Amino acid sequence: MTRVQIDPEYVERSILELARFGAHGETGVWRTVYSPEWVAAQDWYAARADEAGLAVRRDAVGNVWARLEGSEGGSCVATGSHVDSQRPGGRFDGALGVIGGLIALRALKEQFGPPKRPLEAVSLCEEESSRFPSANFWGSRAIVGRIEPDDPEAVRGYDGETIAEAMREVGLDPARIPEAVRNDIDTWIELHIEQGPMLEQVGLPVAIVNAITGLRHSVVDLRGTSNHAGAFPMDLRRDPMAGAAEIVSGVINTAHRMGRPAVTTVGRMTVEPNYPAIIPERVTFMIDARHPDPAARQRLYAKHEALIAEVAARRDLDVSWHVTHEQAPCVCDPATVHALEETARELGIPTLTMASGAVHDTQQMATIAKVAMLFVQSKDGRSHTPEEFTSVEHAVAGIEVLAAGLHRLAY
Amino acid sequence: MTRVQIDPEYVERSILELARFGAHGETGVWRTVYSPEWVAAQDWYAARADEAGLAVRRDAVGNVWARLEGSEGGSCVATGSHVDSQRPGGRFDGALGVIGGLIALRALKEQFGPPKRPLEAVSLCEEESSRFPSANFWGSRAIVGRIEPDDPEAVRGYDGETIAEAMREVGLDPARIPEAVRNDIDTWIELHIEQGPMLEQVGLPVAIVNAITGLRHSVVDLRGTSNHAGAFPMDLRRDPMAGAAEIVSGVINTAHRMGRPAVTTVGRMTVEPNYPAIIPERVTFMIDARHPDPAARQRLYAKHEALIAEVAARRDLDVSWHVTHEQAPCVCDPATVHALEETARELGIPTLTMASGAVHDTQQMATIAKVAMLFVQSKDGRSHTPEEFTSVEHAVAGIEVLAAGLHRLAY
Repeated sequence: MTRVQIDPEYVERSILELARFGAHGETGVWRTVYSPEWVAAQDWYAARADEAGLAVRRDAVGNVWARLEGSEGGSCVATGSHVDSQRPGGRFDGALGVIGGLIALRALKEQFGPPKRPLEAVSLCEEESSRFPSANFWGSRAIVGRIEPDDPEAVRGYDGETIAEAMREVGLDPARIPEAVRNDIDTWIELHIEQGPMLEQVGLPVAIVNAITGLRHSVVDLRGTSNHAGAFPMDLRRDPMAGAAEIVSGVINTAHRMGRPAVTTVGRMTVEPNYPAIIPERVTFMIDARHPDPAARQRLYAKHEALIAEVAARRDLDVSWHVTHEQAPCVCDPATVHALEETARELGIPTLTMASGAVHDTQQMATIAKVAMLFVQSKDGRSHTPEEFTSVEHAVAGIEVLAAGLHRLAY
Repeated sequence: MTRVQIDPEYVERSILELARFGAHGETGVWRTVYSPEWVAAQDWYAARADEAGLAVRRDAVGNVWARLEGSEGGSCVATGSHVDSQRPGGRFDGALGVIGGLIALRALKEQFGPPKRPLEAVSLCEEESSRFPSANFWGSRAIVGRIEPDDPEAVRGYDGETIAEAMREVGLDPARIPEAVRNDIDTWIELHIEQGPMLEQVGLPVAIVNAITGLRHSVVDLRGTSNHAGAFPMDLRRDPMAGAAEIVSGVINTAHRMGRPAVTTVGRMTVEPNYPAIIPERVTFMIDARHPDPAARQRLYAKHEALIAEVAARRDLDVSWHVTHEQAPCVCDPATVHALEETARELGIPTLTMASGAVHDTQQMATIAKVAMLFVQSKDGRSHTPEEFTSVEHAVAGIEVLAAGLHRLAY
């Protein structure tokens, strides 16, 4: 059993230092890709990696890599997460995996010297699509070669700028994006906060992630006939709000009855004309439905679509729906999952093995490498908010499993 | 049986002329109170009344009255409707009753000379609250003495101006509003478009209104806990969208099952933060529930409130609701309703007797006079839109019943 010593004080200091870049209120972070705060955060990461004696390299999209060379060469074992945040997000989402990977490599180098296989830690430039709504996984997509040639000029931010313009402003050349592709990563392990309440519920610090959910975002557009709220009898209405309420209630109930880990959420709804005393003309809403099991996921979607069609037909509403985002489930590499489970067991850190309901860069990395993830407990299951919190104790436990797991794979 | 001859060509011309003031697109009207278009419309009305040999008087809030003196004096029989429109509305809502009253008095004077009891027609200044959201029934409220002394400086328009400022701009002195009060109206009859599909469904031109609905607007505020749409299992959520959907679906179903004329509408909903992949923190919506029968109305409200409380408690949501608008049902004067029914029967115009699901100035007038209303058919039940339409044939039928009814009451 190999225990890598992780200094809690250094972990806490690193979390607080990184959180300074884009600090928002007491505990929030507002750090979008290619912003001045983002530049400062990536510079901070590069300086810490350099201090640790790691070889620093910045790639064509602004990911910052820290490498510990392996005596036997070959493809590497890599770890990391994303440095960008929601607007605002907290100090832990993405940031903890960025810090954790760097601290793990630093500790391994100090305590065990060079590994056999190369180890790399990375601070990925973009995951949240919080500045450019269609740029999600920009950093990891560049690494796996999934950025299309047209994307840099086509992807626009909330303020109208292209991502190509934003890249040039920080000294990156969009034409060189293909140079970021890696084909020498054997295994990828990402440490991340859970963003849900499972670990807290069972009182455990760390989870091993064996799958990442598949998700589908469907925008449903229901149209009826707008009429006077008083003068039109119920039995003659074509009321899209009545249909929307029935569908929303139904899809939520379907996921609930299917049981964990199925989830369905309607977070966004718009009503036209949205007047108090007028039957709406149109109600539009988005269904976010997720399941990590490919077959169960298709059953969930089929039930949702059957309900939408049935309600619209019965209520004589015009309906259309289209998928705006589709993500296949990602099954983690069983051997890597097992290695992490064994590592944690040997360290005496109790863990849970679970699927991730949130999407992660790891899903992109899975197209070129064997992958797994580690989760640490999120207080109250919160994330994407300044209130998100993970204790230093739990962060250290996660980094300990990460570091020992990297040792198992690379030494 | 007295038949008052109504000239269809003059009716059509009057509708088109009045629709010029605030014309919006092909068939729409955008004419809010105290706007330049409104001034032109009231001037047009005064000029037509003067041409017809009626005594014209403008009151303190800008209602324009046209009077045909009665040989025996005493309190008058009055008719009219409102000249303001939605933004945009159509050519008929309000306008038809304004025109119809004037044409009825003109025809009565020409064909029958002076009545025994005085007759008055009025173009009411404001009903829709389409410029000042809390100014609804401004014209009729002034007549019945229901404008509070603070109102002129407190009521603000969508652009921030007070209604007092808007009045002064058209030469009216808000301090003189109490002078608009009338205590000499014995009977009030308002002609209006139906704004619903009932007459069209049964193929009749005219309805006699025996009651006007009571209504309650309740704003329901549901708060839960915003969390990640993927990482939070269904069984641990406090999702206000799930609660809102269940409540909206339920209240609509309750009104439907109670049967005509119960109606419940949710036309307005806002979701916070309204993001695709986040369980909402808060959903706010307005329930518009109406019934003309006082006891049935209370049963409807009680069922709605019981459902709101039950769903919120079961889903562990914080809930509050408050009533933003309450209007008691208005039962029309049975003798006046009967007089209009008899009049139509004698004229050979088939009618339906029904409750109004929309609110009207008549509810205000009911506090000082015996009231009834006449409805004429609305194409497809549409109103509050440029597409609203009533045929000249049906308009004339309604004015014939109105004129003959006024004759029955005043000659």
